[in-house]
Amino acid sequence: MTSVKKTLTPLSRKIFTALRENCLLDPAVPVLLGFSGGADSLCLLGLLAELGWQVTAAHFDHHLRPESGGDAERAGELARRLGVPFILGSGDVARLAHAERLSIEEAARKLRYRFLFATARQLSAQAVCTAHTADDQAETLLLHLVRGAGLAGLRGMQPRICIPDWDAQVPLARPMLGVFREDTRGWCNAKGLSPVEDPSNADRTYTRNRIRHELIPLLESYNPQIRQALARTASALGGDYAVVKAVIEADWNRLLAGASQGWVALDWLGLQALEEGWLRALLRRAVAQLRPGLEDIDLEDIVRAAAFSRQPSASGQSNLTAGLRMFVEESLFYLEEPGAAPLPDRWPQMEPGAEMVIAFPVELHLANGWWIQAERQKIPPWLRLSANENEIWLDTDKLNGPLVVRTGRPGERIRLLGMGGKTQKLSDFWINLRVPRRVRAAFPLVCCGDEVVWVPGLRLAEPFKVSGETQEGLHLVLNKNPA
Amino acid sequence: MTSVKKTLTPLSRKIFTALRENCLLDPAVPVLLGFSGGADSLCLLGLLAELGWQVTAAHFDHHLRPESGGDAERAGELARRLGVPFILGSGDVARLAHAERLSIEEAARKLRYRFLFATARQLSAQAVCTAHTADDQAETLLLHLVRGAGLAGLRGMQPRICIPDWDAQVPLARPMLGVFREDTRGWCNAKGLSPVEDPSNADRTYTRNRIRHELIPLLESYNPQIRQALARTASALGGDYAVVKAVIEADWNRLLAGASQGWVALDWLGLQALEEGWLRALLRRAVAQLRPGLEDIDLEDIVRAAAFSRQPSASGQSNLTAGLRMFVEESLFYLEEPGAAPLPDRWPQMEPGAEMVIAFPVELHLANGWWIQAERQKIPPWLRLSANENEIWLDTDKLNGPLVVRTGRPGERIRLLGMGGKTQKLSDFWINLRVPRRVRAAFPLVCCGDEVVWVPGLRLAEPFKVSGETQEGLHLVLNKNPA
Repeated sequence: MTSVKKTLTPLSRKIFTALRENCLLDPAVPVLLGFSGGADSLCLLGLLAELGWQVTAAHFDHHLRPESGGDAERAGELARRLGVPFILGSGDVARLAHAERLSIEEAARKLRYRFLFATARQLSAQAVCTAHTADDQAETLLLHLVRGAGLAGLRGMQPRICIPDWDAQVPLARPMLGVFREDTRGWCNAKGLSPVEDPSNADRTYTRNRIRHELIPLLESYNPQIRQALARTASALGGDYAVVKAVIEADWNRLLAGASQGWVALDWLGLQALEEGWLRALLRRAVAQLRPGLEDIDLEDIVRAAAFSRQPSASGQSNLTAGLRMFVEESLFYLEEPGAAPLPDRWPQMEPGAEMVIAFPVELHLANGWWIQAERQKIPPWLRLSANENEIWLDTDKLNGPLVVRTGRPGERIRLLGMGGKTQKLSDFWINLRVPRRVRAAFPLVCCGDEVVWVPGLRLAEPFKVSGETQEGLHLVLNKNPA
Repeated sequence: MTSVKKTLTPLSRKIFTALRENCLLDPAVPVLLGFSGGADSLCLLGLLAELGWQVTAAHFDHHLRPESGGDAERAGELARRLGVPFILGSGDVARLAHAERLSIEEAARKLRYRFLFATARQLSAQAVCTAHTADDQAETLLLHLVRGAGLAGLRGMQPRICIPDWDAQVPLARPMLGVFREDTRGWCNAKGLSPVEDPSNADRTYTRNRIRHELIPLLESYNPQIRQALARTASALGGDYAVVKAVIEADWNRLLAGASQGWVALDWLGLQALEEGWLRALLRRAVAQLRPGLEDIDLEDIVRAAAFSRQPSASGQSNLTAGLRMFVEESLFYLEEPGAAPLPDRWPQMEPGAEMVIAFPVELHLANGWWIQAERQKIPPWLRLSANENEIWLDTDKLNGPLVVRTGRPGERIRLLGMGGKTQKLSDFWINLRVPRRVRAAFPLVCCGDEVVWVPGLRLAEPFKVSGETQEGLHLVLNKNPA
């Protein structure tokens, strides 16, 4: 190791540092390199080999050009010259493009990464490396800018990223984001290695090619160091993005009071305490929750939403954008889709004053499309791990009478699970769980005598939970008919 | 007011909302508009007048073109047609450019804004408005991108901003950042008003002109809606910037352990608890503190600094960039300029074991360029407000012997101000105030008998403070010779 370190050139030192500190990779564990045979991946392959990393070169033949087979052969030869194991893959790009209605570029990319990650798993590689350079990064930033992206896009490619679609554990690593193409070409020349010419064309879209050959040269006439400037901007924005994302997610988790199909509810008082910039970011987050594609909502819409959330109009509701509606009710700020269930239907309701005995097995239908399913069942072994308030098991030994569904009584209390047998007033329970006032009177409670056993969808009472020994219990599930 | 509201067009409604919600302006208080007479400012002037705002048009004649006098006359005429008061200013741009070595554009801008803010103060206007449009915003983003800016630059112009160089109270407001140039031209046409042609040329630099006439048209061939996309990106980044800035400043204030000429010290353990993105942002902030021009420090330098701060090298120090040096000592991470005082000289020191009696008035010189000045003085009335640990007053009635300067003794305690007469071990005091271990033994203490009276530069002891009635006291000041 010492002898390797002594011979480090500035370029290999840079890559070594990036592999360790930006990509968080371990020199003692194998990596896989996506190897086109072009100057960038050839340089990275050579440096990885020089540094003594256990690297395998994986080449994917897209069969999109007649020369692609020859390119693959040459790539294999280059890997052999560097003393690196070589794996060849290929796939039918045109068929995938047709089947999934993808562009040729998208299909090529999809097949290539599928092959790379499958190979990485086979080899127990810690990561798939690609040789994306600072030039690619500058182009990516411009590509996103041209499309009108925000911070998430402008930060460009990340040095280490997990993409669950490809693999939940094995990350994609890009150790060359600080290296420019001229340096990789220089390295190949110095080593007397001829890279495969322009083999990555399959991955380069029309717009990216125009950015590389037209936009960047124009920008260089404004600033000769534009590629360096753009790469630096992307990486600085990457840090900013991490900060913003963490802060907004923390606020989101703190203020989210409820969400389901087509609606989210946020703590209104909490929203009002936010500074304007935060409030807007959080409202953007709320819109993205309902409409994942609508990240780049107009500023004016967000400003209007912020103003509304601070001071709702007299009508109490307002249309935001793209059909989304906002309103405030009882300290909750709601954002909802046109088709979202009306407010009372988001909670189960029954006829006020009604009482129904549960004679299981049964499907007990409530007033507004909700129903409770009850049957005796063996308790599954994973039950102790689940915490789904819509689906509970009761210990039948602890029930001293029939189960009845009824609404709450004045002054009624509940022994909440996890509160050590202490009781809470039902009226406080409604407030704590942010149940709107107008649905409380008709909210169904599953009771046994005077004791509340389960508030369907919200909380089980302590005395009736199953213990480790209970083999069979009463299984209750709260369901809702689709709208 | 109701009748005005009824006749609002989409454009005037947009401006009304922006004035209130983005610029935070009050319709009942006067505003000043920087009025070139071009389509943008003519449209804004007309809309402000229509909306019933008390607006004054202020035109600055740069005398840079022979037609400028005629333009000023036409601008005045347009204001009169709109029924708006008009104020004309002018200045010698060439002379200022020569005197302050500014470009003609910079000098023109400086004189114009100086005139606008002086006029705003005279008129008690709540803000200086300018008619920068979404087109200007898109150009500004690109201008910053080309120069290699980070988030602070890419967010472009702000709808409301205080620029202390111009005025500490009166903000600059830009209500037209959501409106495009074609809309302002359309408004002028519809009203039959001919704007002054291209009068803002004086403010348009060569690069900005190229961006407008060359880069944006090229980008429109990539995305016909590019100007809209860029304006939206700028405003989204504005919100992100506010979040990042607030978070980083909060961390900065929490972790800053000391700073003076040429150095900053941060809580090292606190730094290590930060996530990588945060840590980098904070180190960037530290670099900016010492080198305000060095905001766009290379990512690699920051990554290296972050790695060093997590695990300092064996030598304990490392060069960061541009001469800045970092090292860790006793739970503090230091970043310093080459010329910064060596660590021990940042605190007063004396010969270990030495003892000096204070016979006032006196200037008592310590070991390393620090000295204590002592004299009897009338206590100034504002004293009770000041909390400067380098300058204190003692109540002479409470001293039962001569004042002596000496170093600390083993097990010595101090009765700290504000701790209700309780004592603290001097050894704990050093730790709490983050005094490096190696300067503690020679740290001068001002004592009276066995009691510590003042730890110079750090804390006064409770028993010796002056009360509300004390008329005259002993005035002690800690000074340091310039390096």
